[in-house]
Amino acid sequence: MDHSITSRGIFELLNLVGTFAFAVSGVMKAIEKEYDLFGILVLAFVTAIGGGTIRDLLLGISPVAWLNDNRVIYTIFIATATSTVFFSLVSKVQRWLTFFDAIGLAIFTIIGINRGIEKEFNEMICITLGTLTGTFGGVIRDVLSGDKPLLFRKEIYALACIIGGSLYFFARKMGILTHISEVLCIVIIVTIRMLSVRYNISLPIVRQPQQK
Amino acid sequence: MDHSITSRGIFELLNLVGTFAFAVSGVMKAIEKEYDLFGILVLAFVTAIGGGTIRDLLLGISPVAWLNDNRVIYTIFIATATSTVFFSLVSKVQRWLTFFDAIGLAIFTIIGINRGIEKEFNEMICITLGTLTGTFGGVIRDVLSGDKPLLFRKEIYALACIIGGSLYFFARKMGILTHISEVLCIVIIVTIRMLSVRYNISLPIVRQPQQK
Amino acid sequence: MDHSITSRGIFELLNLVGTFAFAVSGVMKAIEKEYDLFGILVLAFVTAIGGGTIRDLLLGISPVAWLNDNRVIYTIFIATATSTVFFSLVSKVQRWLTFFDAIGLAIFTIIGINRGIEKEFNEMICITLGTLTGTFGGVIRDVLSGDKPLLFRKEIYALACIIGGSLYFFARKMGILTHISEVLCIVIIVTIRMLSVRYNISLPIVRQPQQK
Repeated sequence: MDHSITSRGIFELLNLVGTFAFAVSGVMKAIEKEYDLFGILVLAFVTAIGGGTIRDLLLGISPVAWLNDNRVIYTIFIATATSTVFFSLVSKVQRWLTFFDAIGLAIFTIIGINRGIEKEFNEMICITLGTLTGTFGGVIRDVLSGDKPLLFRKEIYALACIIGGSLYFFARKMGILTHISEVLCIVIIVTIRMLSVRYNISLPIVRQPQQK
Repeated sequence: MDHSITSRGIFELLNLVGTFAFAVSGVMKAIEKEYDLFGILVLAFVTAIGGGTIRDLLLGISPVAWLNDNRVIYTIFIATATSTVFFSLVSKVQRWLTFFDAIGLAIFTIIGINRGIEKEFNEMICITLGTLTGTFGGVIRDVLSGDKPLLFRKEIYALACIIGGSLYFFARKMGILTHISEVLCIVIIVTIRMLSVRYNISLPIVRQPQQK
Repeated sequence: MDHSITSRGIFELLNLVGTFAFAVSGVMKAIEKEYDLFGILVLAFVTAIGGGTIRDLLLGISPVAWLNDNRVIYTIFIATATSTVFFSLVSKVQRWLTFFDAIGLAIFTIIGINRGIEKEFNEMICITLGTLTGTFGGVIRDVLSGDKPLLFRKEIYALACIIGGSLYFFARKMGILTHISEVLCIVIIVTIRMLSVRYNISLPIVRQPQQK
């Protein structure tokens, strides 16, 4: 019991760490685009809550989760304020941001899969919901920045969710304790992400034979 | 009673005035982008009903409001037809459009906050819902035009919603009559908007120290 | 009875044919943009299920249709795999793709209108829901590709939905058998589309008198 509460507490904390990292990536993008302070705040928000919002809309969960979670909202405000003020500093700790971002990616994937399991969807839908929760905040961020989504072009990102999420899903189905499955998923996703950034590994793209 | 009905009637009228102005801004953008007649109609629609639609989706209000409000739909059709036909004329009355747009912004902010109050959300969520209702139609318009959202870069716009909306929220919480709170909110938002356009006042942006 | 089951079976089959064609158009776009394999899959998905998803969200139907329809999901996977592998070949059968795409457009329009009729909306909303179901997958595809939506600029597309959809709606209201109305709608939409592509017919655009 005590143990379970602690592991819940750690999970919630990691969720806020991930939210923080996602919000910071929205701030960085908005500043790159020379958006004003309101634009910075909006991009921080959509990056942090976009994936979960789309998931909840698709599932018909309403109101969407963040409307009732002040901790998430305050975390985004704090992330926005600190990373805007200490912008130059933040640019220098890119490696740490990637690490926190990977933690967020893992936590969001787990939350998405859990929502799918609660609604009794099959493995394919559950893993899709997990991947979507982890990645679509960044897609909305890029669309609102006028960029092609980085997700579709950069190092392995969504695939990390799919692999880590699949392991998590089947671990839970096999009856492995939830928090052990979670640790497994987080370790896998963070490892894949850090290695793919470190060695600049991307998914293959399909070359067009003829130029347009 | 009589008085209340009249003030409801005025509010509804102003809502349609705002819808008209928002639709016209969609038409202007579509023409600028050389979109065809269908594109013009879609941009008029998403600009006018986009903010309210996202709000209703987030809150789980379904079907979304405009599906059951023919007056709004006909207003958008009329706005599209007249501003497409009299396009050259419309370009010359930009100042008036800004004024009507500001009225729409205020009305939409009030409606968004009211939805939040009905669902018993706190002040932060209510003001967010108001601002979102007022501003996200324009964001979708810009995304569908292939532009970076103007909202994040131009004169004070969302901030007008936040200030006017906060006043409205606290006026209502303090027990001030709804229609007095509304007048207060509309006057504040329209004044801030007209002054910021007149004197070209923007929110600060954060400069990047190094160029990419 | 037997007859009705058969015509249901054909309708379901045509729905999957349309889903296939829409997914392929997402794949082609993603490859043109040099997106990676995950980007290709996402664009295939949003093109095929985007219109229906937005319709279901607006109507408050949840979870959205495709989450419970594995046939649609597998069709998209198969479309993605085959058109990615046989990309060069697919580029050469553009005419056939346009034909299958037109079938999808017609089926999706019919499904959208049926949802509207079930919810007892008027003709205007029903036809809007049909058009939206048919066309908005392509709009999302283009937005995620960083392009201005083709829908607003190319040969007659949405107008085919509006004309075919109107005929379908009024045929059903006049008591004509559902599957006869469907055949009528499909023939009209496919004919309009094939002719407008063949003769490169577009909706008029409004010229701006002065340059910006």
